[in-house]
Order: sequence, then C-alpha cells, then structure tokens
Amino acid sequence: MHAEWPVYENPWVDVLMADVELGDGTRFDHHIVRTRNAASCVVTRVRDGREEVLLLWRHRFAIDKWVWEIPSGLIEEGEDPAETARREVEEETGWRVAEVTPLLAFHPVGGMLRAEYRLFRARDAEYVGEPTEQNEAEKVAWVPLSEVPGLIDSGQIATAASLVGLLRVLAEQK
Amino acid sequence: MHAEWPVYENPWVDVLMADVELGDGTRFDHHIVRTRNAASCVVTRVRDGREEVLLLWRHRFAIDKWVWEIPSGLIEEGEDPAETARREVEEETGWRVAEVTPLLAFHPVGGMLRAEYRLFRARDAEYVGEPTEQNEAEKVAWVPLSEVPGLIDSGQIATAASLVGLLRVLAEQK
Repeated sequence: MHAEWPVYENPWVDVLMADVELGDGTRFDHHIVRTRNAASCVVTRVRDGREEVLLLWRHRFAIDKWVWEIPSGLIEEGEDPAETARREVEEETGWRVAEVTPLLAFHPVGGMLRAEYRLFRARDAEYVGEPTEQNEAEKVAWVPLSEVPGLIDSGQIATAASLVGLLRVLAEQK
Repeated sequence: MHAEWPVYENPWVDVLMADVELGDGTRFDHHIVRTRNAASCVVTRVRDGREEVLLLWRHRFAIDKWVWEIPSGLIEEGEDPAETARREVEEETGWRVAEVTPLLAFHPVGGMLRAEYRLFRARDAEYVGEPTEQNEAEKVAWVPLSEVPGLIDSGQIATAASLVGLLRVLAEQK
C-alpha cells in the first residue's frame, strides 16, 4: 500500500481511499472503511444440568432484522477490551460477570473494513437488576446452548460476532 | 426508521445516515454503511482418510495481515450467489467444484453494515489449472480440517466469513 487518504470522515465511520500495488505490479485505488473496535462476550451458566447462554433479542435496523445476539458494544477510547465486554454484559442484560477470558479476535470484513472485534468468554453471572441500556433489547434470556445450532440454521442468529463466538464455544465442546 | 439518505456514494461503498426512533421515543441519526454482498465456499475433500479444506493464504491490506481464507468474492449484479461461490472457487484456486449447497447467511456487522454474506459448502473438487485470479493469494492449499482450530487460536484464520464457515463445519461434526 503506497498511501491512503480520507474521502469521508466522522467520529463513527471513516471512508479511506488506498493506493495499492499487487505483487505483479498491478496498481489501483481501493476503498477502506474504518469503524470503531468492539468487544462481545459469550456468557454461559449451567442450570439443572444443562448449559445455557445469555442472549439478547433485538432489532437491527441497518439490516432490518430481529436477531439473537451476545452482549456487545464499542470499545471506548483507552478502555481495556475485557472491561468493555464486562460493562456491556451488565448494561445490556442486568447480569454481572466476575471475570472474562479472551476467546478470539476477528475482522468482520477482511477485504475492506478496518476494525477488530474482540470476543470474550465468561462463566456464571449474578443478577444485579434491570439493564441500564433499556433500548438495547426487546428481551434478555438464558437460552439452552443445545438450541443454538437450530437458531443459526433458522437465521435467528445471523450477525458475525455472535456466530463466531457461539460457534467457537460449540466447536470446543467436541 | 423514519428515513435514510446518502452522505457518501460510490459503486463499492455507500455511507447512509438514518433517522431512527427507539421504542421509548428516543430519536437520533445513525450511520449505515452499505457494501456489496458476497459469497464464500467451504470446500472439503477426504484424502488418506483425513478431511481437508481448500484455503488461500493471502494478505489483506485493509487490516495489514496475512490470513488463511476460504474462497470468496462479490456477487455480481444478477448473479446467483451459488454461482458466485462456484466461480470464485475456480478463479481463486484453480479447483472446480461440481455442486455447492447453502451453509448459512450472515451479516458482518449487524449494527451498522448493510451487506449479506452467503456461505456455501462443497465436497470434492477437480483440478483444472492455475487460478485465473493470480493476485488473489500467495498460495492455495488443502489444509487438514483438524488443524483449523489451531489456526483460529493463533490468529491465522481471522476474518468473519472464513471463521463462520469453518466453525459451522467443525460444529456440525459433533
């Protein structure tokens, strides 16, 4: 990449143009979108011998869909991503987790979007009251982990951070 | 959502502003980024009793990382997404698949990005020659599926379409 320059700037979304040269000498301009980094958390608990996961049922207006998602939010300036994950769990669900551990990090669109999404894992949670971010979700529920594959197949879990986090946890149970 | 209007437009990336009202009456403007839809394909085969998956090792300049990815590309105007998946496998790897079946569809960033990524699955492939998109990858390889969890943990598989597709295939083997 020889250079990049902004073509649209804003506190939430920047669009950059990059001057790129490939291995064979081909040179072209390519768009890059830069957005803020985010952190999400897969919170599980065991109740009556079955594993459950903490999900929010919410409407995403950008895609005009209702989906189940794990708690998630933007990382504030200078904030430790693990703290973002803990904070968002509590603000969005009213449940507090003692500790989160890193699960993995990913890029939502490797070819065009400059943003990193950090995924964390927590086990058990304590109910501390109504969510303070009341607008985040229509409902908050502990969903049996065994029902997650069906929710994925029916398109009710359909956004990347939730899919990657939940599938990673399901795959590790193999 | 009351209305939306473009603030930056281009054949590859549009930035829209949306006038949104929440359930409690809170009303605000929110950015939406719209990009083209894409299709990707998890291609597996069995060799010497072990399952392998067809991956590309490529540099993603938007995130400045080398990553393993499944074949993937933008859906052309009017193109059947399954055909996109078949076409990209062949153009990017030089391997041809007879048939692809839908795996799942997802949205890379539910809260802000209006784009749908379609994932497909194919079994077996026939080598038909050098990839026609020579610039797509540094190398093309059949990687044992058993090595995929380690590549995820080490950050060598780190982009959403590849993670979701590969984790979905790993999870279904449970």
